[in-house]
Amino acid sequence: MDHLHRIAALRHKLARAGFPGLLVTHPPDIRYLSGFTGSSAALGVTRRRARLFTDGRYTAQAAEEVQAAQVQIVTGPPAVAAVQWLAAQPGAAMAGFDAARTTVAELIRWKRELPSSLRRSFLSPTPAALVESLRMVKDEDELRVMKEAALVGCRLFERILPVLRPGVREMEVAAELEHQARLLGAEGMSFDTIVASGIRSTLPHGRASAAPLPRRGFVTLDFGIILKGYCSDMTRTVFLGAPRHGERDAYHAVLEAQQAAVSSVAAGVSCAAVDEAARSVLRGKGFGEAFSHSTGHGVGLEIHEPPRVGAGQKTRLEAGMVVTIEPGIYLPREFGIRIEDMVAVTTAGCEVLTPAPKALIEL
Amino acid sequence: MDHLHRIAALRHKLARAGFPGLLVTHPPDIRYLSGFTGSSAALGVTRRRARLFTDGRYTAQAAEEVQAAQVQIVTGPPAVAAVQWLAAQPGAAMAGFDAARTTVAELIRWKRELPSSLRRSFLSPTPAALVESLRMVKDEDELRVMKEAALVGCRLFERILPVLRPGVREMEVAAELEHQARLLGAEGMSFDTIVASGIRSTLPHGRASAAPLPRRGFVTLDFGIILKGYCSDMTRTVFLGAPRHGERDAYHAVLEAQQAAVSSVAAGVSCAAVDEAARSVLRGKGFGEAFSHSTGHGVGLEIHEPPRVGAGQKTRLEAGMVVTIEPGIYLPREFGIRIEDMVAVTTAGCEVLTPAPKALIEL
Repeated sequence: MDHLHRIAALRHKLARAGFPGLLVTHPPDIRYLSGFTGSSAALGVTRRRARLFTDGRYTAQAAEEVQAAQVQIVTGPPAVAAVQWLAAQPGAAMAGFDAARTTVAELIRWKRELPSSLRRSFLSPTPAALVESLRMVKDEDELRVMKEAALVGCRLFERILPVLRPGVREMEVAAELEHQARLLGAEGMSFDTIVASGIRSTLPHGRASAAPLPRRGFVTLDFGIILKGYCSDMTRTVFLGAPRHGERDAYHAVLEAQQAAVSSVAAGVSCAAVDEAARSVLRGKGFGEAFSHSTGHGVGLEIHEPPRVGAGQKTRLEAGMVVTIEPGIYLPREFGIRIEDMVAVTTAGCEVLTPAPKALIEL
Repeated sequence: MDHLHRIAALRHKLARAGFPGLLVTHPPDIRYLSGFTGSSAALGVTRRRARLFTDGRYTAQAAEEVQAAQVQIVTGPPAVAAVQWLAAQPGAAMAGFDAARTTVAELIRWKRELPSSLRRSFLSPTPAALVESLRMVKDEDELRVMKEAALVGCRLFERILPVLRPGVREMEVAAELEHQARLLGAEGMSFDTIVASGIRSTLPHGRASAAPLPRRGFVTLDFGIILKGYCSDMTRTVFLGAPRHGERDAYHAVLEAQQAAVSSVAAGVSCAAVDEAARSVLRGKGFGEAFSHSTGHGVGLEIHEPPRVGAGQKTRLEAGMVVTIEPGIYLPREFGIRIEDMVAVTTAGCEVLTPAPKALIEL
C-alpha cells in the first residue's frame, strides 16, 4: 500500500480546505494513511510532516508497520500528544479534526491540554471527513485486495451450501462458515454472520441463533470476511424444500430489483438513482413497503463506509468506489429475502466482485 | 434480565445528579437498560417514562426484545427523535447525555433540530457516564451469564491444547478455537483472537497471523467469547518444547505477579493497589520495564469497560465488579508472556471465573 501517496493526497485536500494541519484519530483512517493496525494511536499531519503517536504496547508493531510517518511512543493519550505536537509546529495557528469521529468529551480534554492562548481557536472541525472522502475511492492496491476478499466470500458460499440441511442449527452453519473463512486465510469476519432461516428471515439483521433450519423455507446468509484489513460483504438467500409460487415470485422480484440496481451503477450516477432503480422494481410489484432499508453502502477498511446508497443520497459514484447492492423484502410473519453483491464502480458501469450464483437455489 | 429494576436504578442516579431526563445512545447501554440488541437505536428516559426509538429494520426485533420501554419506529435518526421526545415532555428543561459517547457532529446535529429556545441549554453532559457506572457492578443475572461465558473460555483452552504443534499456523489455531467456540454456543468472539508465538509473543496484541508455530518457544493465547451479549476474556501462555532457565524464570515471575494481583482483589481496594500488587513483583525481579501495559480492565457487555486496573486509578472495587487481571512481560527480540484471569469482586476477596491451569504447560 502506497502510504506516502495517500498522505500527499490528504495534504492536497488540506491545502484546498485551508487547514495547515490535521489530527487523525479514527483507527481505519490511521491505518489507511500510515499502515498502523494497532487500536490506540493518533496521527498528526502537517504540510511537511507526519507523526504517529502510540503507546508502549505497540513499540515493536509500529516500527514494523509504519514507514510513511515518524513514530513517537507516548505514555499519555496519543491524541493529546498529537494535538500538542500540532500546536508546536512552527507557524501553526489551527488544526482540523473530524467532528464525526471526535467525542464531546475528547474535545473538552484536548482543549484543556492546550496553551490557553490556543484553547479557543486552535482545533476546528474540518468541513467534511477528509480522510474518509479519500478512502471512498479505492486505489489499485485496495481494489486488488478487495477482489480477493470478495472471491473468498464466494468460495465460502459454495462450501456452505452442503451444510444447509433441515435441523442444522443456524449457529452451526455460522461456525462452519467462519471456520472455512479462517482456513481460506481470513483474518476474521467483517461483522457477525447472519444466518436467518424460516420466520427469522424476516429479521434483516438476524444473527445466527440456536434455531434449527426448517424443513422448508428461506435461509438468508449475509456474511463477510476481513483480508489484509479489507472487508467483504455478500448475501444470498436459498430455499430449503420446494418454494410455493408466491415465494418464488417474491424471490424473483428481489433478484430483478437487485439486477436493475447493479445495472444502474456507473461513474457519475447518484447514489439515490441506484437506490431508486431497485426500489421502483419492488414498488411496481407491490413490495415497496416490504423493502425497509437502503439499497447499499460503501465498504473497504470498514464494513460500512460512505457513500450510502439510499433514497435522497446525492453523492455521485466515482470510478474506484466499492459499494454493496442489497435490496431485500421482509414480510412479517411470512419470510424475508435479500440478495447482495459487492460492486466496484468503473467509468462505464461496474464490476461485480461477488460472482456467486443468484438464481434461486433449492436444497 | 430485570430491565425495569435497572431503569429504576438509573432514575435514582438521575435524580441525585439533578437531571430530569437522559438520552442514551451507546448500544451496550441501551441493551443493558432495555434488552434491545439492534445496532441503531436511542433510548429516552425521564423520571416517569422510557421510550426506545429505532428504525423499520428492527420493528419485529424490538417488539420481541423490549418490555421495559415503549417502542417507537422512526424514519430519521433515532437519537434526533429521542431528543425531540425528551424536549416535548411536560416540564422538561434539560436532558443529560454522555459526552464520552457523543460525537461533536452528533451534538451539533441534535441541537440544530431542537426549538431555538432550547438549543443552547437543553442538552447537558452528565457529570459521569451514568449508565456505565451502573454497568460496572453486575447483578445476579449478569454474574450467572458471565460465569458461564468464562467457563466456555476454559473449555476452549482445554480443547485447543492438542492443536498446538510446531508448524501449525497461528491462524489455524484461531480458526479451530473459534469453531469450537461456536459449537459451545458462543454468539461470537469478544475480540480478534490473539495467537502470538515465538518472536511474535513480544507483541501484546499479536492477532493470529499466517506464521507457523515454532519448534520451541512461547505461545500466547488471548481470547474471549460472547454469550448472551456478555464477553469473556482470558489469556494463557504455554511453551512448545523445553524452556530454558531464563524462560522458565520469566514465566514464574509473571505467574507470581498475576497471583499477587488476584490475591489483592477485594471490595474497597483501589484499582491502583491491584495494579501495584502485580507491578511490584515484576519490578522486584527486574521486569518492571517489560510490563508495558495496565494490569486489567472491567468486562461485561463490552470487552473493555470501566474500571481500568492501572497505575493511578483511584476507583475502588465493589462487590459485583468483574475485572481482568493480566500482567505480562515483553522482552523485545526474545519472547513475551501474559497470564490473564477474569475475576468477580466479592466482599472478602474475589472469585476467579476462569479456573484453567496456570502452571507452565510444556507441549
